[in-house]
Amino acid sequence: MPSTARSTPEHVQRTALALFAASGYDQVTVAAIARAAGVSHMTFFRHFPTKESVVVGDVFDPLIALAVAQQPEQHPPLRRAVDGLLGAMADPAAREHLGSEEFRLRIRLAASTPSLRAAVRAATQVTEDEIARALGAGGTAPRTARAAAGALMGAASAVLLDWAGGDDGTEAASALTRALQDLLRGAP
Amino acid sequence: MPSTARSTPEHVQRTALALFAASGYDQVTVAAIARAAGVSHMTFFRHFPTKESVVVGDVFDPLIALAVAQQPEQHPPLRRAVDGLLGAMADPAAREHLGSEEFRLRIRLAASTPSLRAAVRAATQVTEDEIARALGAGGTAPRTARAAAGALMGAASAVLLDWAGGDDGTEAASALTRALQDLLRGAP
Repeated sequence: MPSTARSTPEHVQRTALALFAASGYDQVTVAAIARAAGVSHMTFFRHFPTKESVVVGDVFDPLIALAVAQQPEQHPPLRRAVDGLLGAMADPAAREHLGSEEFRLRIRLAASTPSLRAAVRAATQVTEDEIARALGAGGTAPRTARAAAGALMGAASAVLLDWAGGDDGTEAASALTRALQDLLRGAP
Repeated sequence: MPSTARSTPEHVQRTALALFAASGYDQVTVAAIARAAGVSHMTFFRHFPTKESVVVGDVFDPLIALAVAQQPEQHPPLRRAVDGLLGAMADPAAREHLGSEEFRLRIRLAASTPSLRAAVRAATQVTEDEIARALGAGGTAPRTARAAAGALMGAASAVLLDWAGGDDGTEAASALTRALQDLLRGAP
């Protein structure tokens, strides 16, 4: 797909990820990204408030809590949390996003770059808090809601890190679906 | 209990936690801790390799994976993980440790000090990896083992943070036991 068919933030993100892969995240400056992408500093910062935000945070994240809120209230909280994540992934746009090479590159970078860990943790916490709120609004006791949201994000993060480190041809969505369903149904 | 009845690392840790509580973690130097505790720099570093290690990491953590390894293999992995944590907590020494004022102070500090987050995350990851290995040795598929270990640590961290932020008189062990059992039995 020619570069002109992509939006500016997509183009900047792809350029940045290619530079990070080639030279290492910490070695690449915003100036270098902007230059390689043919945009100004100002354009970069209009789309990405920080260099970290090129890698961390995800358009997909806010959809999870929305999908959790739509789960039947009579289901147990961990099931609502897991089914919410799996439901959000069933959306075709989410599937395409999670199946993209950019997504794997970003997870790999986040996993292998110590200077990104704090930003990853902060982004995960925002999503976890939103999921806990969605579960609480569905009648779950606040601390149990926190436990279920923490369990979902802990499990999903562990699976994604394991997936990004391997290269067995599985897509992220398939890896997440299988592991979370196994967890929920109590597979040995 | 007079200070002389405590071991040197306990005395240094209590002194450090009191200073952190009074002045803020980032403002207190190792030199100030050593001076206030009446020990040398070298003694401090013999017991604590870094200032972070006064707060982060826990004598209790390695016991969790050991207890997970002892759970019946026919139980589902999340149940083995949760029962392992609850089993490790049932030990009287663990109960006393988790019920101490130091433990609450340390969780509060870890939760409220951004400069400690990376160390907290690293310590959690070590424990999570050990739990995943214990589950895998009990016959769980590697990725499912990672998911279950991530779920346990995600849930336990969320509950401990919630507990440390509140002040309802509950002990950490009770808060963890109730929330994790609710999660496992699918309480609404």
